[in-house]
Amino acid sequence: MPKVLPFKQVDVFAEELYKGNPLAVINCMDIDASEVTTEQLQSIANWTNLSETTFLFKPTEAGCDYKVRIFTPGSELPFAGHPTVGSCKAFLEFTGIKKDTVVQQCGVGHIELSVTSDQKISFKAGPTIVEDITDKNITDYEATMNIKTIERPKLLKVGPNWLVCLVKDSEEVLKVEADLAAMEALDKANGHTGIILGGLKKGCTTDDEYEIRAFAPIEGVPEDPVCGSGTLSFIRYLQEINQNKETKTLHVTQGARVGRSGNLYCKIDVLPGGKVDYYVGGYSTSIINGTITL
Amino acid sequence: MPKVLPFKQVDVFAEELYKGNPLAVINCMDIDASEVTTEQLQSIANWTNLSETTFLFKPTEAGCDYKVRIFTPGSELPFAGHPTVGSCKAFLEFTGIKKDTVVQQCGVGHIELSVTSDQKISFKAGPTIVEDITDKNITDYEATMNIKTIERPKLLKVGPNWLVCLVKDSEEVLKVEADLAAMEALDKANGHTGIILGGLKKGCTTDDEYEIRAFAPIEGVPEDPVCGSGTLSFIRYLQEINQNKETKTLHVTQGARVGRSGNLYCKIDVLPGGKVDYYVGGYSTSIINGTITL
Repeated sequence: MPKVLPFKQVDVFAEELYKGNPLAVINCMDIDASEVTTEQLQSIANWTNLSETTFLFKPTEAGCDYKVRIFTPGSELPFAGHPTVGSCKAFLEFTGIKKDTVVQQCGVGHIELSVTSDQKISFKAGPTIVEDITDKNITDYEATMNIKTIERPKLLKVGPNWLVCLVKDSEEVLKVEADLAAMEALDKANGHTGIILGGLKKGCTTDDEYEIRAFAPIEGVPEDPVCGSGTLSFIRYLQEINQNKETKTLHVTQGARVGRSGNLYCKIDVLPGGKVDYYVGGYSTSIINGTITL
Repeated sequence: MPKVLPFKQVDVFAEELYKGNPLAVINCMDIDASEVTTEQLQSIANWTNLSETTFLFKPTEAGCDYKVRIFTPGSELPFAGHPTVGSCKAFLEFTGIKKDTVVQQCGVGHIELSVTSDQKISFKAGPTIVEDITDKNITDYEATMNIKTIERPKLLKVGPNWLVCLVKDSEEVLKVEADLAAMEALDKANGHTGIILGGLKKGCTTDDEYEIRAFAPIEGVPEDPVCGSGTLSFIRYLQEINQNKETKTLHVTQGARVGRSGNLYCKIDVLPGGKVDYYVGGYSTSIINGTITL
């Protein structure tokens, strides 16, 4: 007997419709998790053809609001940025619950999300790892984009492994025509997910407006329109090089070269004692609302 | 003011859920066509990320049931196979109309569809063109798949331009690991959409069961899971080489190498006087049902 479950397709990280990153969300909170198989969830995510499809279940751990399983068309992920923000948005709409702090249970543990009164949803990042790469690697990667970085690029391990490159300004970012075949070969050789290329918005004098682009040819994604984990990597990298001593908010835009207009509102939160927390958030809209037959 | 319109995502050419080719269909029949712009429709089709998204409008020509506009993520198409069958399925469900002949108005004119009592929907093909290609081209294409064709390949112009290659049997078809980079270079040089590779089902003694695969790397589709125009090209090619004098029905399966299980039921209809009509059809299911906000 086919199951009919509530479905939403959410546009994540954009104020304007169709300018963000789409996410399919299926509400499995009213069924038992044993009623679906991993193979079934994977085949649905393969069929939606979106970068990610998520399934919401009743939480199995105390203190959580829902449990999410995140699938790309080819595999399951422990965590990802836009699926976390989009799943939280859908959870609030599916259930009608109103609260300003939501806790998501997922493959990397518990993720805390904050919800503002105007429905901006931000996640607090888990631990990140910053690693150096070789001079040769830097030169090779710069050649794939025909750029000269203004700070030493670093590898950011935030779940995916993004190599973050900073150039002078947004004009430099937007003009890049990447050699995707060469980039893919380098990513394959080095075990990287892809490149996050960013620069200060041209004309910005306050050091808090950035334009970024995300290239991940090895994942079958030449350019990801609006990438949460990439944005997290980018702000984590900025803190690595700037060592801000005070809490700072940042506005990151993304997607201009692929017809999107993503807005990510970020916070580098420097706590007393020097610990730093990172937040990435934005607005989302449920564009498709209905049911899905399993 | 945002518009909220009826939406379906249909699984086309498969009896089993999630084993066909998905199609997003938006019902614009209750609005005026002037209320949406081509840019808007294109941005929706870019966002759904499916091979095609269609929009149903009230017909503007006599004798038609609906008018459809078909978009890929990057452009508008005058005609395509699985979008035609899926749009007809959605039209019947959206309107509740029951009839066994439906006429679709689209960019190539009027397409006649037949609907059986168990909801198998078939389209009658418009004119097709069969062209020869050079010996050098044949050898080069065979090399990209490491195959030896058993009949001379031909170029089939059915809207897309498919090069059809026939090998001994389905085993030969399914074992191919195509060199997609080499294929893409050849397709670009020759203006081809891609390759349809087919063979008789291994063990079939009745000459009417075929397995095919569709490669279209130039379109960003390494392998199309279930392709209507490709299947039409394939049966048109079979008639070119076999010159059947009597009407013949064929069952074509597709998608096995990419986790799908598409079934296409075809007819080569030899009319008195020698004219031949071609029909391609199958079963579809509306998996997602709801609304979309424009």
